[in-house]
Order: sequence, then C-alpha cells, then structure tokens
Amino acid sequence: MDAEDRLGNHDNNVNDIENEVLLDGNGFERHWSDIADKNVTFKEPLLSRRRNTTSQIAIVGANVCPIESLDYEIIENELFKQDWRSRKKVQIFQYVVLKWALALLIGLGTGVVGCFNNIAVENIAGFKLLLISDLMSKEKYFKAFAAYAGCNLGLATIAASLCAFIAPAAAGSGIPEVKAYLNGIDAHSMLAPSTLFVKIFGSIFGVSAGFVVGKEGPMVHTGACIASLLGQGGSRKYHLTWKWLKYFKNDRDRRDLITCGAAAGVAAAFRAPVGGVLFALEEAASCLISLDAYPNSEQPNYLACSRWRSALLWRTFFTTAVVAIVLRAFIQYCWTGKCGLFGQGGLIMYDVSSAAASYNIPDIVAVLLLGVIGGIFGSLYNYLVDKVLRTYSIINERGAAPKVLLVIVISLLTSCCSFGLPWFAKCIPCPTTSTVSCPTVDGSGNYKLFQCPSGYYNDLASLFLNTNDDSIRNLFSTSTEKEFHISTLFIFFAAIYCLGIVTYGIAIPSGLFIPVILAGACYGRLVGRLFASISELDMGLFALLGAASFLGGTMRMTVSLCVILLELTNDLLLLPLVMLVLLVSKTVADSFNKGVYDQIVKLKGLPYLEAHAEPYMRHLVASDVVTGPLVTFSGIEKVGTILHALRTTGHNGFPVIDEPPLSDAPELCGLVLRSHLLVLLKGKNFLRDGVVLTGEEILQRFAAFDFAKAGSGKGVKLEDLDISEEEMEMFVDLHPITNASPFTVFETMSLAKAAILFRQLGLRHMCIVPKAQGRPPIVGILTRHDFMPEHILGLYPRIECHK
Amino acid sequence: MDAEDRLGNHDNNVNDIENEVLLDGNGFERHWSDIADKNVTFKEPLLSRRRNTTSQIAIVGANVCPIESLDYEIIENELFKQDWRSRKKVQIFQYVVLKWALALLIGLGTGVVGCFNNIAVENIAGFKLLLISDLMSKEKYFKAFAAYAGCNLGLATIAASLCAFIAPAAAGSGIPEVKAYLNGIDAHSMLAPSTLFVKIFGSIFGVSAGFVVGKEGPMVHTGACIASLLGQGGSRKYHLTWKWLKYFKNDRDRRDLITCGAAAGVAAAFRAPVGGVLFALEEAASCLISLDAYPNSEQPNYLACSRWRSALLWRTFFTTAVVAIVLRAFIQYCWTGKCGLFGQGGLIMYDVSSAAASYNIPDIVAVLLLGVIGGIFGSLYNYLVDKVLRTYSIINERGAAPKVLLVIVISLLTSCCSFGLPWFAKCIPCPTTSTVSCPTVDGSGNYKLFQCPSGYYNDLASLFLNTNDDSIRNLFSTSTEKEFHISTLFIFFAAIYCLGIVTYGIAIPSGLFIPVILAGACYGRLVGRLFASISELDMGLFALLGAASFLGGTMRMTVSLCVILLELTNDLLLLPLVMLVLLVSKTVADSFNKGVYDQIVKLKGLPYLEAHAEPYMRHLVASDVVTGPLVTFSGIEKVGTILHALRTTGHNGFPVIDEPPLSDAPELCGLVLRSHLLVLLKGKNFLRDGVVLTGEEILQRFAAFDFAKAGSGKGVKLEDLDISEEEMEMFVDLHPITNASPFTVFETMSLAKAAILFRQLGLRHMCIVPKAQGRPPIVGILTRHDFMPEHILGLYPRIECHK
Repeated sequence: MDAEDRLGNHDNNVNDIENEVLLDGNGFERHWSDIADKNVTFKEPLLSRRRNTTSQIAIVGANVCPIESLDYEIIENELFKQDWRSRKKVQIFQYVVLKWALALLIGLGTGVVGCFNNIAVENIAGFKLLLISDLMSKEKYFKAFAAYAGCNLGLATIAASLCAFIAPAAAGSGIPEVKAYLNGIDAHSMLAPSTLFVKIFGSIFGVSAGFVVGKEGPMVHTGACIASLLGQGGSRKYHLTWKWLKYFKNDRDRRDLITCGAAAGVAAAFRAPVGGVLFALEEAASCLISLDAYPNSEQPNYLACSRWRSALLWRTFFTTAVVAIVLRAFIQYCWTGKCGLFGQGGLIMYDVSSAAASYNIPDIVAVLLLGVIGGIFGSLYNYLVDKVLRTYSIINERGAAPKVLLVIVISLLTSCCSFGLPWFAKCIPCPTTSTVSCPTVDGSGNYKLFQCPSGYYNDLASLFLNTNDDSIRNLFSTSTEKEFHISTLFIFFAAIYCLGIVTYGIAIPSGLFIPVILAGACYGRLVGRLFASISELDMGLFALLGAASFLGGTMRMTVSLCVILLELTNDLLLLPLVMLVLLVSKTVADSFNKGVYDQIVKLKGLPYLEAHAEPYMRHLVASDVVTGPLVTFSGIEKVGTILHALRTTGHNGFPVIDEPPLSDAPELCGLVLRSHLLVLLKGKNFLRDGVVLTGEEILQRFAAFDFAKAGSGKGVKLEDLDISEEEMEMFVDLHPITNASPFTVFETMSLAKAAILFRQLGLRHMCIVPKAQGRPPIVGILTRHDFMPEHILGLYPRIECHK
Repeated sequence: MDAEDRLGNHDNNVNDIENEVLLDGNGFERHWSDIADKNVTFKEPLLSRRRNTTSQIAIVGANVCPIESLDYEIIENELFKQDWRSRKKVQIFQYVVLKWALALLIGLGTGVVGCFNNIAVENIAGFKLLLISDLMSKEKYFKAFAAYAGCNLGLATIAASLCAFIAPAAAGSGIPEVKAYLNGIDAHSMLAPSTLFVKIFGSIFGVSAGFVVGKEGPMVHTGACIASLLGQGGSRKYHLTWKWLKYFKNDRDRRDLITCGAAAGVAAAFRAPVGGVLFALEEAASCLISLDAYPNSEQPNYLACSRWRSALLWRTFFTTAVVAIVLRAFIQYCWTGKCGLFGQGGLIMYDVSSAAASYNIPDIVAVLLLGVIGGIFGSLYNYLVDKVLRTYSIINERGAAPKVLLVIVISLLTSCCSFGLPWFAKCIPCPTTSTVSCPTVDGSGNYKLFQCPSGYYNDLASLFLNTNDDSIRNLFSTSTEKEFHISTLFIFFAAIYCLGIVTYGIAIPSGLFIPVILAGACYGRLVGRLFASISELDMGLFALLGAASFLGGTMRMTVSLCVILLELTNDLLLLPLVMLVLLVSKTVADSFNKGVYDQIVKLKGLPYLEAHAEPYMRHLVASDVVTGPLVTFSGIEKVGTILHALRTTGHNGFPVIDEPPLSDAPELCGLVLRSHLLVLLKGKNFLRDGVVLTGEEILQRFAAFDFAKAGSGKGVKLEDLDISEEEMEMFVDLHPITNASPFTVFETMSLAKAAILFRQLGLRHMCIVPKAQGRPPIVGILTRHDFMPEHILGLYPRIECHK
C-alpha cells in the first residue's frame, strides 16, 4: 500500500494521535508495542475455549481420539511464493517421476499383500477344515468339534489380541475410515503403520477363524495404509527420510496417494480394476476430479506443463492395473500347485457367464421382488448393526481384556452354529451328472460328507464348513438347481444374517461384503426356487442378483458395486439386471435409513461432510453458525500473545489483522496456521521492539519445506518450544507466513452456499467477512464442525420444522 | 433492514443533509429521485462497451455466433426463496419421477436412433457395394467406377446440402461442442432441434457415401441433442409446453440431462455403457460430481430427502444401461434377417478374446514401440487437422455453395482412392483353411474379389470397398496373420491417414474415431509383422493395440478410451497392455501438442475453461484482470438507467449497490441478471417516486418460474419491451430479484485460486470486492472470458516469461 493511498483515505477515520505517530519515525516503533499491549488486554477474555456443540473427537477403533481436518487449500504466503519461484525443471521432473513411481509401488504393494492374504487364509483355514473332515470321516464327532472350536478360538484370540493391544484402529471394516479420510478427516492412527500391520495379520487370522467376516473391507484399508506409509516421507526418528519425498509433505498429495491406495485395495479384493477406480470416484468424488490451482501444492504446476488433465484419475487406473497384473501373475504361479492348499479358490472370481442371459417379463418381476427384499433386509441389517455396535462400544470401552473376551464369546457362538446346524440338514444323494467328485475330498468343494454315509452329502455343511469364499462360489454355481434344499437355504440365511450382525464390531478386522453377499445369495436362490416354474434364469444368476440386492440395500454404493459385480462375474450382458436390482434395493432401503458405512462414520463421531447441503441450511446465513469468540493476531504480534493463544485454544487457524499504522483501517491480512506458528516460534526469529521489515530475514532463514506438513505426530509440538520470559515480550512478524488469500464469504451468504464452497474446495477454514463497512474486518471462521447438523441443530433446535 | 439498524449506525458517517431527509417522510422520497439522477450522471461515462481482448463469439459450424456462459450458480433472491418455501411434497415427487423418466427417454431415444442409424447405413452402403461387386464380377470396370463415384457423390451432396443449408452447426464431430457445453459454454444452435435432425441424417448419408468418417462422434452429439430437446420444456410457439417440464428451466438441470445424453451417445456408438459413463465423467468432470446446495436449483432439495448422493452418476449409468438394452434387443431382432442388408456387422463389437492373452518381454517392447509410434503419428495428425481446418474455414466462410462444392471435391477424391488404389494390389490365393466363403459373396466380408480371377482375392479392395466398420473388423480379425500383404497395409494406412485429415472439416457430420482406429489398426498390424518372429501375440491383437495407440495419440482421453476398448473387445485380460500403450502414446503426444478435440474447441473460439490454472496466473491477483468500467445499479433504480445500461452494454450481470439512505455506507447488495431485469421491466411494476417497500408486491405479481431460464432464443428480449417516456422516469425496486449472496473474492486473491473457485463452482460471474474499507464496495466482475489465456496475455504480454 503506498503513501498516497494511506493519506488519501485518512480523512475518513481522523485520529490525531495516529497522525502524530506516523510523522514521528521513532514513535512509530514505540507506538507498536503500545498497540500490541492493548491487543493483549483486549483479547484476553476471548481466549476462552471455543464452544462447539459437536464432538471434536471420534471413536477410532473403540478408542477416543482427537480429530483434525485435512486442508486442501494452498497456503499462499510469501514463503510459498518465493519457494515456488525458485523451482527448477529438474524438481518438476523428480516430482512427476516420483508420483508415478509411488503409484506403481502402491499397486505392487497392495497386490502382493492381497496375494499373501489369500495364500495365508486358504492354507490356515484349509488345514483346519481338512483336519475336521478327516476326523468326521472317522466318526469322531466330539473330537472334531473340539478341534474345530479350538482352532477357531486360537485364531480368534490371536486376531483379537493384535487388535486390542497393538492397534485398536484396525478393528472393523476400514472402509468408513477411508471414506472419512478422503472426505478430509484426519484421525490420528487411522492410517498408521501399526494399523497396517494389524489389519493384514488380524484379517488373516480373523477370516481363518471362521468368523462371518470378509477380507475385502480390510483390504481397502490396507491399500490406503500402504499408500499413506509410502507417502509419509520415511521416519525422521530412524533417519530414514528421503529427500525426494519432501514433495509429498502436504495434505493434497497425500490424499491423492491414498485415493490410489483405496482403489488398489478394491482392485485387490475383488480383482476389479475398473471397479476400484469407480469406488474411489464414488467415495472420494470431489477429490478425484478436483481442479488444481497449484496441482501440487508445494511445487510448480506440472499439470500445466504436461497437460495431464485427469492425471489423478488416470494414475488411479494405473495403480489398479498394476494390482490386476500382480494378481494374475500370482494366480498363474499358484495354478501349478506351489501355494500349498491354495488352489483355484481363494481369489474370488465367480463365473456365471455360462448361464443364459436372455430374460423376459417374469424374470423382471423376480428381479424387482429381489430388489424390494434386498432393500428391506438391508435397511434392517443396518439398523441392527447400529444397535449392536452401540452395545459393543460399552464393552469395548472397558479396555483390552473385555474386547478379547467378547471376541472369544462370538467365536464360540460361531463355532457352535457352524458345527451344530448342519446336523439338522438331511443327507442328499450325490448327483449322478456332477463332474466334480462327490463327496468332496479336499478343503473346498460343493459336496461335504459331514455325518452322511458315503454317496451322500450334507448341503448345509458344504456352506458352513467351508471358507466364506468357497461358500459363495457354491451358492453362485450354475446348473445346480436342486443342490441345496430349501430348508438348508433358510437355516443358512438366518444364521449368516444374525452372525454377520453380531460379528461386526468385535475387535477384529472384519469386512462386511462377504456376510452380505452370503446372505443375499441365499435368499436369491430361495426366490429363484419360487420362480423356478416361470423363469428361465439360472439359480446361480438368482444368487448373484440376490447378493447384488442385499449389497445395494446395505452399502448403497450403486455405481461402483455394479461395476465390481460386472468384473467379478466377467459378463457384461448381466448389466441391465444388476442395475435394476441395485436401483430398486437402494431406493427401498433409502426410505428407511442410511448406508451402513455412513452409519458407522456417524457412530464413530467422525465429522463427515455430506455432498449436499441440508434443507434447513437455506434458512440460515453463514454468520448464524459462528460460535464463540474469535482469536486474532496483529501483523506484528507479541510472542507472549501468540503463545498464550496457542496454549489456551485448540484453534488451528488464526486470522491476522493489520491495524493502524500498518494500514489506515483494520484490514484482514490473511490466515496463519498453528503449525506454521509453531515452526516460526521454534526458529526464534524475534524482534526486540517491533522493528518492521524482517520479512526478508525470515525468508532467508526458513525454507518453505520447514513449514511443510509433517507426518502424523511428527510436527513441532507446543511442548517443544522453549521461550524465555524475555523473549515473551518480543515481537514476531507474521506476514511472511500468512496466507494472504484465504477463501472468504460475506456474512449474509446463505449457509447452504457456503457449505458447498467449503466442501467443493476441500477447505479447513473459511473466513466470514462483514458486508457493511466500518466493522472489524472478520466476523468469524467456519470449520468443518460448524457445518455438522448436530452443531447447527444445537444452535437452532426448531429449524428442522421448517423443512 | 429495520429502522433501528439504520439509526444505530448513523453516528459513523454524520451527514446533516441525509439526517434531515430521513426525518422528513416526503423528503425521503424526493431525495431518492435526486440520488437516482445523480447516479445517472455519475454512471453515464461508464456505460461504454466493455473492452475485452478475447473473442466473445465462436465459430459454430463455420458460422460465427455469439456465445453465452451457462450459470450453475443458484440465484438466491427473495423470489427464489419464497418460491422454495412454498414447495410441496407432490412437486418434489413430480420432479424426481420426471428426472428418471427423462433419463429413460434419453436412453430409449438415443438407443433407437443408434439402431436406425446402423440399419440405414448398412442398407444404403450395402446396396451400393453389392451393385459394384456385381458390375465388377461382370468385368464392367468403368461402369462400376461410375456407379460407385456417382452413388458416393449423390449421397455426399445430400449430406452436405442438409448441413450447409439447414444446420451448419451439425458439421464435424460434435464431441468438441458437447465438451464445451459441459464446460459451461452455451453457443446458440449447438444443440438445436435442426442440428439434431441434420446430425442424424447427415451422418447416415455421409457415412454411406464412403467418406473416411465415423458415426461415433455424431452419435455423441445426437445423444446430447436429444437430451437437450427433451429438457427444453416443449415449444411455447406451438403451445406444446408441459407444466412439469418447467422444473428443468435452468442451466443445472439441463446440464445434467445433457450429461446423460452424451453418455448415452457414447454407449450407443460403441455399445459401451461403462465407457459412456466414464467418458461423461472425464469430459464433464466437475459437473458430474458437483455438490449441490440446492440440487435442483429451482426446487426443494430432493437429494436431502432421498439421500441419493451420487444420483447423477447413477442416473447416467441408468441411461447407458437403457441404451445397451435397446441395442441388444435390436441386434436379436435383426439376427433373424429382418433388417435388410444389416447382418452381423453394423454395430461395432470386435471379438479378439479368442487370441491368447499371455505375454512376455518382446511383446512389451512391441507395445512400447506402438505407443511411441501412436504418439508421433497422433500429434502429427492433430497438427495437420488443425492446418486443414484453418484452410477450409476460408472456403466455408463464403457460404453454402462453396461448402457443398468442397464436399463434392473430397467425395470424388475419396472415390478415386477407394476404387483406384486396389488395382495396385496383387491378387492373393484364397486361404484353404478359412471357414468363410472366399471370395466373399455378400456386402461385408474379408475377401473381396475385385478384379481378381476366381479363387483369389484382392486384400486392398477388402479394406477399401467395405463399410468402415467392416474394414475395422477385417483388420481386427484374429488368426489371419498373412491375410494382408505388407504393401497393402502401407498403402491403406497412407491413404486413410491423408483422407482422414482432409475429410474432417468439410460440411458433413464426421466422426474422428473410425479414421483413427482404421489407421491405427493398419500400423498395428505392420508392427505385428515386424515382431512376428519374436512375439506370440496375435495380429488381431496388434491391430487393436495399434488402434489404441493412435486413439491415445490423437484424443488423449485415456481412462474412457481404455474402458471403451475393453467393452468393445469384451476381454478384461487385455487391460494391462491397452493401458500401457495408451499411457505411452499420450505422454509422447502431449509433448508436442494438445488433443484434437481441445484444438478444435480452441479453433472454434469457444472459451473453454481448463481444469487447471496456468502457471502465470499465480503472479497475478484477481483485480489485475478486471478490465473496463463497471455498470452498477442502485437498490431502487430509475427505469431509464436500467434500460440504457441494457441497451449499451452486453453485460449479463449487474451489481446492485445499496447507497445511503438505504444503508449507512455503500454496500454490495448483490447481483442482478439481465434476463431477470427484462422480465421485471416487461412486468411494468414501476414506482412513481421511488416509494420503497414494494418487494411484497413484486413477490405477489411474479412467480419464480417467470424468471426461470427460457429455452434458447425464447426469453424476453430487449426489443419486446415497450416503455413509454413517462415510465422511463419511474423507479423499480431491484431487491426482490437480486441474488443476495453472489460468490465474492478479495481483490488480492491470487488469480489462480480465483480461477479454481470459478471453474469448480461453475460460476458465470464472480464479484471482486476491495480488501480495504472506505472504497466502493465492488471492484469488478470476472467472467469466463477474463480467465482466458488470450485475455490475460493480452493485458500482460510478458508474463509468460516468468513461467
């Protein structure tokens, strides 16, 4: 701002004292300390803890943990701009190469983990199942049950102990956590290395223990963890930092990596590369397509150079393709029998393409019926899962031992069901036309002998005493109309439905896909039997459609589910039927409650920002939801004031206001972040008497990377600061680290529009500025929590009525 | 604003005269007219035409036409809010039902048009080809050529005449226009009914005429046109408006429909439903995933009711599935021979899945080589197409007759090439192992007799004298390693490459996919021959990979291309190779120039907003690119002033500023749109002496739908207004139609950030507000044109150096 401007406007706010000070060179500096002092006294009462009615903490793996928001805004301060100007071509090159290399590594890593997971589960569970069928064939029934329940219990205890003692965040599906992260929520330990470790091994032992859980959800979480670990920039503690990785020390690049990781996880779980991309797209939505001002916030615009527009979309696709290649190579290798008991099973891939894919009116009616059933069962499932989770959280809160105990109880229950219920099934004579051996001799297979005489098989045992993947394969198998008795399907459906509900929420990594597919395939076959006389569709196809309907009813992720099912079954001609059933089941279920992942996100207390604004938001304006007093800093602020503010508030961003004489009227200079303040204070670049013009010095002393976001739990902490009494009285120039162009909205903007702006741009702070002049230049700051329904409805309890 | 507020703040800007006026009831009104008069004299010099260095017009179909921006912002004014509050459940239901019904209709319509297109082309071209092969077999060579060239010429003339005289906008591919529309550019006639008509029939005749053009691009455009027509709300002229369709009278809902339409077009062209969705996603990016404050800008938030989050993504998928079903039913129907000459061909679907899909190192090398070749040829192709288009535009500018003449010349050239070149090919003896008849007897087929003796075939004629679809099928056919001679492939490649370049840009609907696939498949086979000794990949697979590489090199739409190719070939196992070749070819080609569609968009002068901000934008702030004076209105403005502003400027949005005594300091009240002003003026709800408080009246006299955006060319026009001299002196209250919460940014925000905000939220106007207080409350308005590189580089020619 030049002098002319300053003088020209001075008749507006005539202030004799200020004018005097301006004319007196020395006085100017003295005046500054006065103002600063005044500020302290003025701001003191405002430093009380900000009131906010929504939870600022979340339950991550049954532990309560404080949550931060991710910040996808570019912090455009002096330092950043200087740093950006000094970039060279070679650094752009490094960055681009690294980004692709990391995508490759994520793909390889997730693919390898996926293979390892499959081999381990098939071998452990296979060993267990062979042991039991061996004992059963010798008619040692009690010994068989003891062995079965014992194995299950042992495996379950290992999984639960890992989970309870090492990484509680690894419990559950993991998809809600990944969703939340991609939505911009950063809960400590959600993607930590320990979580990754427990997720992999806990999932292996949990699935092997015969629980009604899947390994698909955990696989998605694993992919995200691998991506997070790779982008973490090594460990400063063990001096394992690699210089190049500094480029990824910001939320935007990390989010991109984790998007790739989540997609890779889906691809590895279902062998569905396109489905993985669409999953990431449906869940991460705005982030995958986000437009980039500085496509990589800490360095030059490589997008503008290479004209990769949808670069992230494409890189995600690349990652999933790598996963697909790894899985294929692995399957080809294992085909020759080098993977122990891992045979053709293991990696789900259901072939129903041999079934006729022409259909007419009765088939459509059957599909509609399936959709309605799926919707009803799905929403009921979600309701019950919610209730059970709330009950379990009381137990889980009490510590690690009760958690393990709960797992043991559920394990015993599962073992009793799996081993006990098949006794109610009648023995069925082996089909004469079957090409596979009956009864089955190896671990997997359609025809389990159980207690039956030779030449007969127990159809319920074929479902219960198999790995979940094999059970699904049995249910999906085509041209086997009469293989399962109706009563068998009823019993199995009821058992899996209930076990699935009580199993989710115990302290093991537990995916939801498999229980849902199992139960859905069951009633799909039942409906198929109902329509057998008038429909020409195959039973396997009915099972698939049933699974689709139940998936649609619980998860509600229509597009990606559809593509995943397409890729699973490798038959494009089924598409119209699958779409129809998903559409109906989602619509029916949506009229009752939310999707299961959304429910879990809410239950955990994660402040998930919805993609749409709630209707009541249109009755409010942005300033209506600003709560509590605001803590602001001057452009040149006293160290003590800053430290006090940092200590007494939990705020992450502080507006910086230039006041006279730095400007002729109070003016919003920008926003400064807590983490940047900590780095600045740690650097101790203080001014004794508020001498201005030290921006240059700071620019020389700090590099932009000093302010780059550290990995979780690695940044400078408040306790690390060691500020003496004398230093407390000194000043620091905040201008070089102030983001001079934060996103602002007028206080009169409708809250709905503000919410969209906030979500669309992935902001962490949004400044509310007054519309009328002559007032303080900032009204308040909105954060993620201020847009939460609980917060708004807490402030305006009766606003929902206007809906 | 209540009286207390007004008085409470008055001590800030003490103004004796104003206070006096406020206390005097009558004087208040008198005072108003004074202020208004003053405003007129003050604003007079500002009403000069705003200078803007970028073109505000575009070449649409060789005609120059003014372009508007689409506006996806919710115009949140009093009327809208009142209207929104009065909505009932039944209306939400109507809206939701209608949205799905329209998606269904779009799918059905596009599917049926796709079928019709295929039947027509196959029958017309088949008749022509049978006639010629009949004449050739009788050795009447000259007669055959005359018949061939004559048929081609006649068909070409019909197509060109349709295009030149009825709808010039139908020329070309249409994909650039759809891209531009989804980007927010509304050029008149781009999606008009006449364009649709010509696009369908022009494409049929053009493709039948033997041009090296595809029907895929036009199909995408056709889908978008059908969607636009369905959402148009009927014709007011013929009293065909349907009440329900009023819900779609806004840019957001129309864009959603057109997104569905474009996806349906892709699905119909390639039988690729998932590919269609991804195409829409890659091209429409931000719009498909856009977050909605008021998901349907003129009515209640149905999203919040039904919790459909990614509803548009899903509806798009639904539309493409409908298309897929229609196409399948049609093929099943035609299979029995009821569609004339339409046989198994027609709808492209290439089966290369029988080829072995295992590969090793030499194959990867071959694929890399193909990628590099594709990149080089692709970028060269784009360069040449650009040059040719610029040359043609000189001819096309001269009117309809020269356009038709140009088409005739190209038609003759194509006929000569197609009929003349096969004479250079040697006759090849028929393979003994072939299961199909050789030489071919019907229209399509691999083995054309041409001039050869019986038992031989002319391989070049099999490529030239076939429909383009059949030629591609021949090139893709597997297990036919030696079917085509190397020289044949060379000649065909050179001919198609050159013909493709000179054909695009003539006045017929001409898709780019087919020429590119043809040329790519040719050199793919050539490379395959080169690697025959060391690679085990099939020639058909090489042809596919060649086509992929050339597509990647020209179009650069990686993800959707990849999925389209996957669905075309119906083999998931090819995915890794296709991705690799696309990745390489795109990377190579990107280092030379832009994608062909981007080039055409630029050439047409369409102000396409890139997804990323250019690097130099970071050196500028938002206020740097504001050009020309600003035209503002007062909250209560004189009719004459408004009319004058509307007449003398082309602006679409005007800021409304409340000045004392309406507020205590000049305050930005909001933004008012030209179309709304016109409706308001037409309503003649004027105030004689500036009496305030007529907002209520206006709310009673107008409904929000009166202000809803009319279909193209249907709104109130300036000429429709009939304002008398007396009325010119009267006042009108703009508050009820003022959008009170426009998106604003500080003048000091970096241009890069502002550009992202603008693009991400799909804005048409963005208000720049001053940071310092005491200045006029608005600095300027940014529109799409202000973000164009030409505009910015025009203002700051040397800024690129800083890059």
